[in-house]
Amino acid sequence: METRNVHYFFLLFWTVFCFGTAETHNVSTPNIIIMLMDDMGWGDLGVFGEPSKETPHLDKMAAQGMLFPNFYAANPLCSPSRAALLTGRLPIRNGFYTTNAHARNAYTPQEVVGGITKDEILLPQVLKKQGYISKIVGKWHLGHSEQHLPLEHGFDQFFGSPHCHFGPYNDSVCPNIPVYNNSQMIGRYYEEFQINRKTGESDLTQHFLQEALDFISNQNTAHQPFFLYWAPDATHDPVYASKQFLGRSQRGRYGDAVMELDNSVGKILAQLVKLGIDKNTFVFFTSDNGAAVMSGPGQSGSNGPFLCGKETTFEGGMREPAIAWWPGRIPAGTVSYQLGTVMDLFTTSLALASLNAPDDRIIDGLDLSSSFFNNSVIERPVFYYRGNEMMAVRVGLYKAHYWTWTNSWEEFKKGINFCPGQEVPGVTNHIQQEHTMQPLIFHLGRDPGETHPISVLSAEYQQVLGRINAIVEQHKRTLVPGEPQLNMCDLAVMNWAPPGCEKLGKCLKAPPSKPWKCDWPH
Amino acid sequence: METRNVHYFFLLFWTVFCFGTAETHNVSTPNIIIMLMDDMGWGDLGVFGEPSKETPHLDKMAAQGMLFPNFYAANPLCSPSRAALLTGRLPIRNGFYTTNAHARNAYTPQEVVGGITKDEILLPQVLKKQGYISKIVGKWHLGHSEQHLPLEHGFDQFFGSPHCHFGPYNDSVCPNIPVYNNSQMIGRYYEEFQINRKTGESDLTQHFLQEALDFISNQNTAHQPFFLYWAPDATHDPVYASKQFLGRSQRGRYGDAVMELDNSVGKILAQLVKLGIDKNTFVFFTSDNGAAVMSGPGQSGSNGPFLCGKETTFEGGMREPAIAWWPGRIPAGTVSYQLGTVMDLFTTSLALASLNAPDDRIIDGLDLSSSFFNNSVIERPVFYYRGNEMMAVRVGLYKAHYWTWTNSWEEFKKGINFCPGQEVPGVTNHIQQEHTMQPLIFHLGRDPGETHPISVLSAEYQQVLGRINAIVEQHKRTLVPGEPQLNMCDLAVMNWAPPGCEKLGKCLKAPPSKPWKCDWPH
Repeated sequence: METRNVHYFFLLFWTVFCFGTAETHNVSTPNIIIMLMDDMGWGDLGVFGEPSKETPHLDKMAAQGMLFPNFYAANPLCSPSRAALLTGRLPIRNGFYTTNAHARNAYTPQEVVGGITKDEILLPQVLKKQGYISKIVGKWHLGHSEQHLPLEHGFDQFFGSPHCHFGPYNDSVCPNIPVYNNSQMIGRYYEEFQINRKTGESDLTQHFLQEALDFISNQNTAHQPFFLYWAPDATHDPVYASKQFLGRSQRGRYGDAVMELDNSVGKILAQLVKLGIDKNTFVFFTSDNGAAVMSGPGQSGSNGPFLCGKETTFEGGMREPAIAWWPGRIPAGTVSYQLGTVMDLFTTSLALASLNAPDDRIIDGLDLSSSFFNNSVIERPVFYYRGNEMMAVRVGLYKAHYWTWTNSWEEFKKGINFCPGQEVPGVTNHIQQEHTMQPLIFHLGRDPGETHPISVLSAEYQQVLGRINAIVEQHKRTLVPGEPQLNMCDLAVMNWAPPGCEKLGKCLKAPPSKPWKCDWPH
Repeated sequence: METRNVHYFFLLFWTVFCFGTAETHNVSTPNIIIMLMDDMGWGDLGVFGEPSKETPHLDKMAAQGMLFPNFYAANPLCSPSRAALLTGRLPIRNGFYTTNAHARNAYTPQEVVGGITKDEILLPQVLKKQGYISKIVGKWHLGHSEQHLPLEHGFDQFFGSPHCHFGPYNDSVCPNIPVYNNSQMIGRYYEEFQINRKTGESDLTQHFLQEALDFISNQNTAHQPFFLYWAPDATHDPVYASKQFLGRSQRGRYGDAVMELDNSVGKILAQLVKLGIDKNTFVFFTSDNGAAVMSGPGQSGSNGPFLCGKETTFEGGMREPAIAWWPGRIPAGTVSYQLGTVMDLFTTSLALASLNAPDDRIIDGLDLSSSFFNNSVIERPVFYYRGNEMMAVRVGLYKAHYWTWTNSWEEFKKGINFCPGQEVPGVTNHIQQEHTMQPLIFHLGRDPGETHPISVLSAEYQQVLGRINAIVEQHKRTLVPGEPQLNMCDLAVMNWAPPGCEKLGKCLKAPPSKPWKCDWPH
């Protein structure tokens, strides 16, 4: 404690003199770890009923911490959800959406030109004011051009990739995805960092685990508070696991990946305990969007009782597993009924670090401290966006859909099904269905699966509609959409020659620039 | 502790001299409380994702105990499931089924002639050997003729009713259901024990709670180990709650009932802690069958991600919420992946009380001690019966359906729907569909909702089928069905003049006996 106190003193000194914002008493700087899974579903946790015994460490984490069964992604697709987490703002505000077509999900494939802009303030940028050192391990997904990379947006360290691990590609058509160590590329997926598409074997999760453990250990030795954003992507199609986990689960390759991630979570928490910093470290576990049920059972997870999955604004697209863990601070074995979103992790982390959120812009995140420490519940709406459209809103136990669709008939007939086995007539449409005059309203307590819209003739409907419409009107009236960043594509911007490629002899030649408006089918 | 030790000494003395079965060392007689809900669904617990904040005490009980997400009723209907719990035997063995028609659920309405036979050995009868005093509070449902009542089958005390709280009836056509205090009727539902069908108000749960608290307190004062079978029925249609809970939930009357039961569970556990006997009391919470989704949202619960509900052998009919609680013995905040059934409560309770299960008959229950104390998992099949037919079996994560049906077209067209909003073509049939040559097989890990049968052409199907068929053949080869007890009905056997009616002036005149073969439509 003594050393830690000395550290606090210097930190305070530095903070007060450099920024003048921190008060001189009651300043707290717990370490912060956000564990963000990729396409993992609500129903993948044993504590939520998954029967395959893949998550003993997450079940234990829940028993030692606080479970949030009503926690949401900010979007049913990864890039926008991740951008929202790190900015505390809806994608419609931070620019992670497209206006190329109505209500389409957009993300950051290699050919996209845009990414997170310098106008946005990311969590690690603010945490720096309290002396935090921040590292991202795993998948970034906020853009891959140099100005969009993590070290340009507040992170001090980066081990991982700007993208998903799609591939392998033929060099002449498309570069393989680069893997970075800080600002330098150190190889590419399917080249230096192998993923065997046939067997599903890759030791990437072990790399990501080791990076996390080393970072925690080094920061502890340096007595410097840290923010670790741990974002492994093994549960994203094509799912992978390392040799020791392949074939171990009873659900196939996806289950193997879950087991390896669960095991890694266990190791990270154990490391905190071993170093004696568990009581000074806030850890939050969640996922970026619902399970990708369109990939089929072996390659995707479970959304439990919820309708459809990734890409949709039904509950299966955005309801996430979520656990807060902080021994001695967050009471063990509790369940919170707070409606939470990944954007809350921005606001909450700042609050825990005795920092204010930026006050020059609208922040959608809520400070969950009072949920953690008093198990109180703050009323707040949850907005479900798809691209540029607010599709639905949840207020208390009610959810109103103003627009519904899953995907187009054209895509559906190709076999792309976002709701396999779950068609609900009039709800899971294959054309964009407008309900703005008479939204479909579900009571998620009585009907978690969104299969029985409340009758529009009922008194309940009329009463709820008035309440929700007022919230929606307020939201829309005050909404100033950010400049959309995901409209333009160009083969020239792909990862042909990332920084560091020259040292590896891995620079490829980019084709001439021919920008086009990206096509977002979903 | 001193007093307790003296008590143990006398108990031992008594046991050894009276029965000569107990060993003179290592004898343990923890108190045992089984809390059995009525038609409560797996998805009704906050810890399993129900968002309405109705179960803070059950969530806390789970955090302090062991959660069993893979726990089953013995039947999708109440009477057979309850008979199985108390005998440790499948209804097909203990006689709680009918042969009047194929694969029909039968139970104990007022006109049924049968009930539990004297040939069956019930849990309290065996517990007596160790000096346990046993009480049932709430719903019995194992028959209402004098020879079928609880005090004839090992219980020392009884407060409650032989039946559900259906009614009110017109005396001349049908008597109202009697409420008993031990061997004497003390009134009838809708008469001395009011249930307001219009408002849903009844203080029955408060009666049942007070009876439980008093019993625990009295047994503690008497230093005598006890078995409390607490079986309130507020969540069974017509659902009810007492005034202080009516209108308090966000799910309507059903949610109110859940809140009152949750509150009562909290009070019972608190009483154990207050009396200092929590570390010597094993408590298990579960339900008798899946939520009665056919009753509609306001009158029924949630089966979470599972298919259909009560009356069916899909997961929604038989998967139950389940929590084991024993501070200091069962580790807090754990999740068990053991496949469990209510019949295990028979075997487990006996094992905890240092007693052997009867060895002159087949017992289907498993001793769950090793799950509790070592979190180990024992492989065992779960059989899903409907009346006289084994409809399905679960082995590990696989479930094979040999027969499927929900209800008849005739009933379905009347509006009786056991799977509202969940029709799965080829699975939720309205005729009895035989699949014995080629069972429908689901992987409950990848597909908890039973919507995607595994392709019969796959290697997985062939491999699993061989394994499951062997288990089914072994089960059928050794099965000796018990004499069916639920075949005959007779208006003369109804509760016209239960014992004690004369003191209350409430004896009614029975019609002459005209037995008929009961009609079981489901």
